[in-house]
Amino acid sequence: MDPLAKKTVLRQFTYGLYAVTAAHEGERGVFTANWLSQVSFEPPLIVLSVERESSTLPLIRASGRFVVCPFAAHQRELAGALGRPKHRAGDKFATLNLAVVETATGDPALADALGYVVCQVEAEMQAGDSIVFLAQVIEARILSEGDPLTMRDAGFRHAG
Amino acid sequence: MDPLAKKTVLRQFTYGLYAVTAAHEGERGVFTANWLSQVSFEPPLIVLSVERESSTLPLIRASGRFVVCPFAAHQRELAGALGRPKHRAGDKFATLNLAVVETATGDPALADALGYVVCQVEAEMQAGDSIVFLAQVIEARILSEGDPLTMRDAGFRHAG
Repeated sequence: MDPLAKKTVLRQFTYGLYAVTAAHEGERGVFTANWLSQVSFEPPLIVLSVERESSTLPLIRASGRFVVCPFAAHQRELAGALGRPKHRAGDKFATLNLAVVETATGDPALADALGYVVCQVEAEMQAGDSIVFLAQVIEARILSEGDPLTMRDAGFRHAG
Repeated sequence: MDPLAKKTVLRQFTYGLYAVTAAHEGERGVFTANWLSQVSFEPPLIVLSVERESSTLPLIRASGRFVVCPFAAHQRELAGALGRPKHRAGDKFATLNLAVVETATGDPALADALGYVVCQVEAEMQAGDSIVFLAQVIEARILSEGDPLTMRDAGFRHAG
């Protein structure tokens, strides 16, 4: 396989940018994701790819849930900050003084995002350097109006 | 769950538009997809959601492969035409007189797309009204330069 062609064509794939959160027994995690997609209307299902080293991964597994918050177009800086790993950034909820709303399931969602969907994990798959979760949307809330932040507009190549 | 909130937040997810092809024993299928994402760098893995009624689905299963061709920004009309089901559109390769290049694996790729990646299926999952394939990129080729077509720019809500 031609590695340049592989890289070039895969970079032509279009993505949005999302804050993904999870919580379990008082511990909270949040990171910036772009590798996710809806995969079914009925029931509403999503796949999400999470790096194996993610500190939020054990929280998703323990709680069986995660929350997807599409960033608004003006949140580029926050999307970058939430992309830093916890071992360097610390507890991002605290250090970034994140405004949070609580979902009905008791999970944290970003108050300044466009909205959120709470997803209940149905299955997970090993996928190379990552774990892929298949999850059902069980709760949704609109938080603000506006356009979503895209990878292209943010100038990011990969968020996580 | 609030159905309006569910619909509104899920529509804030950002997608590209892709021609997906598959072939088996002389039969060829092609459709327009937007529910797909890379999920791993090493090895390079992709997930693709395919509707259960898709006429290309049996070709993907029989061959164990599919080809993803990101549409160029100017291919909105073609993306719409390839989104029509085969039982109404007939053999879209013939009726649309599609210019095709053959991959090293012998599969058809759209000659006027930005490029293509050939994906070998590693696993499939039941996902509500769709089937989700996890597949490894085994071949890639750049065909032209330009920006990719996005769902938002095309004004589409869902392609398949």
